[in-house]
Amino acid sequence: MFFEGSEKKVEVIVKPTMGSLREFGREFWSEMVARCNATILSEVSNEQCDAYLLSESSLFVWDHSFLMITCGSTMLVNSVQHFLGRVRSDDIESIIYQRKNEYGPWLQKTSFAQDVERLQTMVDGVTTRFGYLDEHHTYMFHLDRDFKPKASDTTTELLMYHIQGKAAQALRCTNQTVQSIRDFMDLHEFFDGFQVDDYCFKPCGYSLNAIKDDRYVTIHVTPQEESSYVSFETNVNLQQDFPGLVDKLLETFEPFSFDVVDFNTQTKITPKGKMVQINKFQDRLSCGYDVNFSHFIVPLDRIEKPTIVKGNVL
Amino acid sequence: MFFEGSEKKVEVIVKPTMGSLREFGREFWSEMVARCNATILSEVSNEQCDAYLLSESSLFVWDHSFLMITCGSTMLVNSVQHFLGRVRSDDIESIIYQRKNEYGPWLQKTSFAQDVERLQTMVDGVTTRFGYLDEHHTYMFHLDRDFKPKASDTTTELLMYHIQGKAAQALRCTNQTVQSIRDFMDLHEFFDGFQVDDYCFKPCGYSLNAIKDDRYVTIHVTPQEESSYVSFETNVNLQQDFPGLVDKLLETFEPFSFDVVDFNTQTKITPKGKMVQINKFQDRLSCGYDVNFSHFIVPLDRIEKPTIVKGNVL
Repeated sequence: MFFEGSEKKVEVIVKPTMGSLREFGREFWSEMVARCNATILSEVSNEQCDAYLLSESSLFVWDHSFLMITCGSTMLVNSVQHFLGRVRSDDIESIIYQRKNEYGPWLQKTSFAQDVERLQTMVDGVTTRFGYLDEHHTYMFHLDRDFKPKASDTTTELLMYHIQGKAAQALRCTNQTVQSIRDFMDLHEFFDGFQVDDYCFKPCGYSLNAIKDDRYVTIHVTPQEESSYVSFETNVNLQQDFPGLVDKLLETFEPFSFDVVDFNTQTKITPKGKMVQINKFQDRLSCGYDVNFSHFIVPLDRIEKPTIVKGNVL
Repeated sequence: MFFEGSEKKVEVIVKPTMGSLREFGREFWSEMVARCNATILSEVSNEQCDAYLLSESSLFVWDHSFLMITCGSTMLVNSVQHFLGRVRSDDIESIIYQRKNEYGPWLQKTSFAQDVERLQTMVDGVTTRFGYLDEHHTYMFHLDRDFKPKASDTTTELLMYHIQGKAAQALRCTNQTVQSIRDFMDLHEFFDGFQVDDYCFKPCGYSLNAIKDDRYVTIHVTPQEESSYVSFETNVNLQQDFPGLVDKLLETFEPFSFDVVDFNTQTKITPKGKMVQINKFQDRLSCGYDVNFSHFIVPLDRIEKPTIVKGNVL
């Protein structure tokens, strides 16, 4: 069975003068989620953040910003339009709408260019693509406004493709539970003091949100063999607070390839063994973020396990 | 400007008892080409083959087989359906309908799976995909019939992406002529005794057909910067008759990545310099062809020339 794990993502920051986004209330955020055909599965809150686990990924709402990540064939652009219908453009400091290349882009309801066309009817923005069309790449649409992100406003994305080994085998089993996956990932040492909210999908798949103060971590696992994918994203300073986590994730999931996307931070990846870095891009977006996009592959493993699909190919 | 160079391809072999396909006449083959929204630009013939240069690639017709290759957003499946409407299924020995992953699959009118659905209404076949969905891959739909290809029925495809250096610069110039491109490619030593038919597109782009007896060579160049692509395909025995040609093409076009697809032959590629082989697949199709698909990349060059696109990204 094919499931599109690759995500669309939007991060919006509003002016501190406009009141708290959390006070828009559960109904508003439920509607935001419904607009892209997802639903809220569960939620955790602390003094600074409401974190929603969705049927397709995650939503985090802080007083003056929100982050929404959705996978599958969801139309995240619909949710963004819903939000822009509620808030005056002048009250918005930053919007970054991002789309990773999909496993099956022809199965999506819109292309990135079509999404941008719709967003441009409501706000002025510019677009950037990191990477070649025929390889791993990520798209960003963002406001072309001067903005100074806070020092703590950093993001690291680790996007892993074609997971292998024990993790892949275990996660593809349909009898997993939240606890068995937690035990398996063995990440509790990193989540000290975090509130964790996770969900085990049927027949398979796993999502995790974790929050502590204004920090979040989110992990989404699509183990389906033909399109396996694990995304990890956080605003935690990895070097300082989670040293070893990236290595641990790469060791656990053994991906054939992975991307690292950094906003105002720089994740250190030391290529190991047969791993090869095949792309690297650095740019400063006009909205104040330094973005790094890198793609790594493990070439030889692919040759040992040739990739043929017969029958109902996608 | 974006142009989709990646090709769809169909190769059909009919029973020797059914008369010559060449006698279907110019009108039939023009209609075949028109069905996928292409036109015939020019043609050359010899005793065994009619070779048509198309507005989108090439068509070769022999007495008992034909090969049609089309790029852009052509619907080659329409042409195949047109052919199947003229010929009894029992008179067909082999059909291989092939699609390479496109730079912009969401810009195509149909997906490979949709093409197969249409073909399955007329003939029984099976499908295979070589390679991962998120990387270079090629699809094949073929009849599930016992067939013994002739010893001379071999094919080599060399598909080059992101051409660099002098070739790329020259080919992107809008003042090229057939002669300047011929001089530049410097392939005449290989084409001794071949009838060559080539065409220079405006603003840029180049196609070449060459035939000698029942042998063909076809080259198509899409130099557009964001989606540059050069395809080379032949049924000539490269090891024996064109030693050095593959190396010469790779040196001339300096691609960042390339695929080699072999049918009943095995092209020798010796990775040079920074080149890395990242995929390899071998399978024997049930219709009698041994297929090899390999993908090679040049990782470091990409890092030296990071790939960012701003503005109207695709």
